Amino acid sequence: MSGWLVIAGLGPGDAALMTPEVDQALAAATDIVGYIPYVARIADRKGLVKHASDNRVELERSQHALELAAAGRRVVVVSSGDPGVFAMAAAVFEAVESGLADWRNLDIRVLPGITAMLAAAARAGAPLGHDFCTINLSDNLKPWAVIEKRLRLAAEADFAMAFYNPRSKARPEGFARALTVLQEACGDQRPVIFARAVSTPEETLRIVALPDCTADMADMRTVVLVGSSRTRLIERVGARPIVYTPRAIP
Amino acid sequence: MSGWLVIAGLGPGDAALMTPEVDQALAAATDIVGYIPYVARIADRKGLVKHASDNRVELERSQHALELAAAGRRVVVVSSGDPGVFAMAAAVFEAVESGLADWRNLDIRVLPGITAMLAAAARAGAPLGHDFCTINLSDNLKPWAVIEKRLRLAAEADFAMAFYNPRSKARPEGFARALTVLQEACGDQRPVIFARAVSTPEETLRIVALPDCTADMADMRTVVLVGSSRTRLIERVGARPIVYTPRAIP
Repeated sequence: MSGWLVIAGLGPGDAALMTPEVDQALAAATDIVGYIPYVARIADRKGLVKHASDNRVELERSQHALELAAAGRRVVVVSSGDPGVFAMAAAVFEAVESGLADWRNLDIRVLPGITAMLAAAARAGAPLGHDFCTINLSDNLKPWAVIEKRLRLAAEADFAMAFYNPRSKARPEGFARALTVLQEACGDQRPVIFARAVSTPEETLRIVALPDCTADMADMRTVVLVGSSRTRLIERVGARPIVYTPRAIP
Repeated sequence: MSGWLVIAGLGPGDAALMTPEVDQALAAATDIVGYIPYVARIADRKGLVKHASDNRVELERSQHALELAAAGRRVVVVSSGDPGVFAMAAAVFEAVESGLADWRNLDIRVLPGITAMLAAAARAGAPLGHDFCTINLSDNLKPWAVIEKRLRLAAEADFAMAFYNPRSKARPEGFARALTVLQEACGDQRPVIFARAVSTPEETLRIVALPDCTADMADMRTVVLVGSSRTRLIERVGARPIVYTPRAIP
C-alpha cells in the first residue's frame, strides 16, 4: 500500500478543458483536497473522500494532503487552472520543504491544466502572441512596492501582461493603483481585456482601451490581459473585435 | 454549408495532455492544416484531408486555412502546446487583418492547450509559482537588441522566466548571448531547467545552476525555465531535486 499525491489543474471551468491525464488521476484517487468551489467540481462516488477547505489556508491544506499520502492514501489536490500558476503547487512544496523529512520521499506529481490567462487569451484572439509577463496583483503575500516596480519594468520591456487576482473585497484599492501606474507608464490606447469566469455559464469578456479602464471592471474571478504597444484590434461587423499581438517586431 | 476555422493546441506531445474540446474539433474537421510533425500527430480517417507544410511559412499556411474555411470546409489549424503562445493563432490573425474583408466574418475560434512552459514547470515542481515572464528567444522576427533589453528588465523585475525557441541550427549564437546577459544581470546560483520534449518518449529534464549553463544544453525542442532570485531546490535522496518558487515575498 503506497500512497501518492497529485496536484492537478482542473482548467478554468468547463470539463471539456480538463485533460484526460487529470481525469485519470481523479478516477484513481481515494481523497480530494482543495478549496471549497474546486472540490465541488468533482463528482461524488463511493469510496471517495472529499476534504474541502476555505481560502487562505493553503499551507495547512497542503500539510493535510501530505499526511494523507504518507498514510497510504491516493490524494489529488485540486487547483483551478494550472496548479503551477498562482495555485496549489508552490504551497505544497513549501509544506514539503518545511515538513517531515519523509515527505520528500513521497510520490508527488504535478499535472498541468489550462490556466486562466490562456483560456482568456484564446477567447479574445491572440493577445499573448508575443513576449508577455504574468503577475499576481494580490498583495496578500508581497509588498505593493514589488508589484509597482514589476508593472513599471514590464511596461518598459513592452511585454503584454496577464494579471491574476486583480481585485478582492478585502483590497479594493490595489487594482486602481495598478491601473494608474499602467496608464502613466504606457501612455497609449492599447487594449485591455477583462475576462471573467471564462468557459463557465457566467463568462463575460470586455475589451476596453487602457485610458478608459476603471477598477470596478475586475473582481477576483477576472483575469486581466493588457496588450503591448503593438497589440492590435481587428474590427468586425456584428461581433466583438479580435485582439492580437503580431509575431514580428520590425 | 458553413465552414469554420479552429486554431487548436495539441499540448506538448502526450495525447493525455490534449483537451476533450480539441479532440471534438478534430473529430468534426474536414481539413487539418499545420506544420508537418504536428499534422502527423492526427490519426488518418476517411474524409479527412491533411495539409502539412514546412516551418517558416506560417502566413501562407494561415491564408490557405482561411481560404478553405471560406469555401465551406471545417478546418483545424494545429499547433503544438497552446496556439496563442508563440504559435499559430497570431499568424492566422495577421492573415485575417491583411486579407479579404469576408474573412473577418468567418467563424474563427482558438482552443487553448497545455503550453510547453507549464508542462515543463509541472515536471520540475513549481518554478513559475510566482510572477514570471515568457520570451521567445528566436531573433527571426525581432532584433536581438529587443531580446537583450527584455532579459535585463526581466532580471531587474526579478521575474522567473520561460524561454521558447532558445536555439536553432541557423542561430547557434543567440542562446549563448542570452546566457551571458543573464549570468551578468542575475549574478547568482539560481536554478535553470532545461526541459526537452516533455511528455514524449524523448523527454529529458536537467537542472543546472545559472553560472554553469552553456548554450549546448538547449535545442529547438527545449523550453528553458530560469528561476527568480527566490526560487529554491528541495534536495531528495535518489531522486531529482524539486524546483519551486515560494508564493510570498516578505
